[in-house]
Amino acid sequence: MTTDPTQFLAEAGDLLGPRGLTRDEELIAPWLTDWRGRFTGRALALASPASTEEVAALVRLCARHGVPIVPQGGNSGMCGGATPDAEGTALLLSLRRMAAIRSLDAEARQVVCEAGVVLQTLHEAVVAEGLRFPLTLGGKGSATVGGLVSTNAGGTQVLRHGSMRAQVLGLEAVLADGSVFSALTPLKKDNRGFDLKQLLIGSEGTLGIVTAATLRLLPAIADRRVLWAGVASLETARELLLHAERLAGDALEGFEVIPQETLENVVDHLPGARAPLTGKHAWHALIELVAGKAGADGLFALAEDLLASGFEAGLVEDAAIAASEAQAEAFWALRDAIAPAERAQGPAVQHDISVAVERMPAFVAHAVPRIEADWPGTRAVAFGHLGDGNIHFHVIAPPGVDPLAWQEGDGKAISDQVYALVTEWDGSISAEHGIGQLKRDALARLGDPVALAMMRGVKQALDPAGILNPGKLVPLAPRDANP
Amino acid sequence: MTTDPTQFLAEAGDLLGPRGLTRDEELIAPWLTDWRGRFTGRALALASPASTEEVAALVRLCARHGVPIVPQGGNSGMCGGATPDAEGTALLLSLRRMAAIRSLDAEARQVVCEAGVVLQTLHEAVVAEGLRFPLTLGGKGSATVGGLVSTNAGGTQVLRHGSMRAQVLGLEAVLADGSVFSALTPLKKDNRGFDLKQLLIGSEGTLGIVTAATLRLLPAIADRRVLWAGVASLETARELLLHAERLAGDALEGFEVIPQETLENVVDHLPGARAPLTGKHAWHALIELVAGKAGADGLFALAEDLLASGFEAGLVEDAAIAASEAQAEAFWALRDAIAPAERAQGPAVQHDISVAVERMPAFVAHAVPRIEADWPGTRAVAFGHLGDGNIHFHVIAPPGVDPLAWQEGDGKAISDQVYALVTEWDGSISAEHGIGQLKRDALARLGDPVALAMMRGVKQALDPAGILNPGKLVPLAPRDANP
Repeated sequence: MTTDPTQFLAEAGDLLGPRGLTRDEELIAPWLTDWRGRFTGRALALASPASTEEVAALVRLCARHGVPIVPQGGNSGMCGGATPDAEGTALLLSLRRMAAIRSLDAEARQVVCEAGVVLQTLHEAVVAEGLRFPLTLGGKGSATVGGLVSTNAGGTQVLRHGSMRAQVLGLEAVLADGSVFSALTPLKKDNRGFDLKQLLIGSEGTLGIVTAATLRLLPAIADRRVLWAGVASLETARELLLHAERLAGDALEGFEVIPQETLENVVDHLPGARAPLTGKHAWHALIELVAGKAGADGLFALAEDLLASGFEAGLVEDAAIAASEAQAEAFWALRDAIAPAERAQGPAVQHDISVAVERMPAFVAHAVPRIEADWPGTRAVAFGHLGDGNIHFHVIAPPGVDPLAWQEGDGKAISDQVYALVTEWDGSISAEHGIGQLKRDALARLGDPVALAMMRGVKQALDPAGILNPGKLVPLAPRDANP
Repeated sequence: MTTDPTQFLAEAGDLLGPRGLTRDEELIAPWLTDWRGRFTGRALALASPASTEEVAALVRLCARHGVPIVPQGGNSGMCGGATPDAEGTALLLSLRRMAAIRSLDAEARQVVCEAGVVLQTLHEAVVAEGLRFPLTLGGKGSATVGGLVSTNAGGTQVLRHGSMRAQVLGLEAVLADGSVFSALTPLKKDNRGFDLKQLLIGSEGTLGIVTAATLRLLPAIADRRVLWAGVASLETARELLLHAERLAGDALEGFEVIPQETLENVVDHLPGARAPLTGKHAWHALIELVAGKAGADGLFALAEDLLASGFEAGLVEDAAIAASEAQAEAFWALRDAIAPAERAQGPAVQHDISVAVERMPAFVAHAVPRIEADWPGTRAVAFGHLGDGNIHFHVIAPPGVDPLAWQEGDGKAISDQVYALVTEWDGSISAEHGIGQLKRDALARLGDPVALAMMRGVKQALDPAGILNPGKLVPLAPRDANP
């Protein structure tokens, strides 16, 4: 924007009213810093439209005045994708006021949510109908449907149910010219050209602003069994995963891995926590089996069979089946506490990476000693979604360093090395958290030039003025061409 | 192309050699008419490159000479998407020579196929490994992987496993400038920007030429049960479907519906065929239940329970469970023979349409009498994938009409009316067969202008010269702007 924003702000205020637009710095401040506290920006104002029509009118206004827009949901993204830059010329557009569940059809197992519906709220709404929404993640108390769609969020149920992309049956979004892409009616099959819905999902607000989505629901599970197994190596954990897939098929809902040291750290950090097994094991696998009505009777036997045959095959050193739902929750609480327990230990750099599932053990065996050798005093830990080929690869700073200086210096260099390594292994530098501004330059440097050129072309075609979330994802607009 | 093609042909011949390029009209002729015999075109030559590198070099050559390219797999598409236009300036590019299965990893349950692999061949290759590829359709003896990907093909297993889009883990495609989009490594989770793979799937060769794909495989099923149920109405069939989904969950693999008259027609047409039930019923439901090892023991009981509770609830009039695998095949043979049986009856216009699953019975109840009233002497029949909200809505010509004249006259007008009706009902004029040239003008007329504008923008960005499959899908290139 090159002109005085006064006229734009006056028109936006007229359009949205006092609840819909504020310049009050106290009200805006909490939303200018990202979830992990890595990025802080400035904004012209905070807009909170109440309807798709208001979003569309606002985008048209922004387009006319050349005002860049940074869409934001629960502000719980991991890569700064919803944080404006420091220039202060962008409008922060919150979707949180659009928090209606427009409809919930229990029979058709579909729910139409506005972008601002919080994931936890969605879970509660559908549980009341005997259904479930098969995606969850740590930030469920903040994360919104719009943000989950725009970042193609993952979580701990991707193994069986896929990421957010797999849950979206229909979509409504406001495009860069203020037109409304309206495809909420869920057609199971529709081959009328390019899949524009898929193009918008995961585009981090750079192609359109998601205002609503139709999501699929599943029947509530009739039974679940949560298992904990100690294994000798990550390679063995993978063999156990394959064994579980063969034996349990669709009943296998989750398969997470945690190294011994990380587990000890969680047990020390989490009040009242206990390790599920008495002995030490190099790696621990957290396995969830679920069944609908059809398979519920045989689920406990399946869990026993899985562990017994795992012992026989030499894959499992020791194991436990949660004896109650409370114990099952306690097993999962250990997994969910890894991130806060680690934060309590001091500074670290986190990498959400993936490689082909079958190569993950070899990657970890290669990368951990390499990083620890190149950066003396650091500790590299890997944990997470082995079943998805997606681990969180965290490198913890040496004791006693200055947190900020380390993050900005060695921390960044370590991240560069991790991303280069994962690229060598034909993997992804962002498995589930997206690119945002955190990984933008890394993607520009390491991404496939053919894919980057396609993305630039699509962005240029759908947002020629570059007003939608500029500076995010990849260097899309001409001004970002040489990062 | 405005210049003499001699130079282009000479260079293409040098590039591809005698096996890779022919102008022999006898060799080319079979590939110039589409599967249904509705479209016949002409071609400059038939190119059959043997590798991705050759495709890329050929596309660069075409780009330099401005030669349009029509990619083709098994030539079994339903909408003329692989048939060149009548001008004769386009190069027909067959992918059939690229028929290698590059790798099959039974443990990781993945197969990397070149574009020319025939679906039937793929099925046989994976069955030998104790696995299955969960997509099948009538044209499996001709349809190729590249065509299935490019048209996002459907079939009879979409209910549980999704269309081709859901099977594709990785993709390789040659773009309009001859660059190679190479993303065959299957990363279960990858959030590095726009999902370009999804954009290419279903784009009918207008954005890129698919040269290979990594496909997911599933464990072979341990047991299947095929059920046949007579029901009083399509609405009752839908209630039975919901009942089956609640009771059987993931075990429900297929749910097809067939009206009585269509069944009688098939039984008359198919040698040795028998109706599964002795009495007449307004509608018939063909239901398949499957189970892996975990649920195989209980599958017959589940099938019995499904029918017994269906009787009790008043949904089922009469029913049978196939007593053997041979009988199960015989049940399915009735379904698969609907199209040939109908063709034997005389001319008809076919419409592959979808509406929201829950609205399909009401749509059929509305559309059938409407069409039959407006076009005296015709019979409208609906059958197919009720579970996907996708039926094949065929309108059979009055007896004694001239086939060609009827197709071109009343037939086209009837199609226009069917498409207008389905659009009023917020449905799709192409559920699974795509757009090609058959439905291009209908889509341009009836499609959402916002979606059409997005598609034009994306096409223009990725194929600015318009050399990839021109005239297909939607009026994409400027010369097609006013159909």
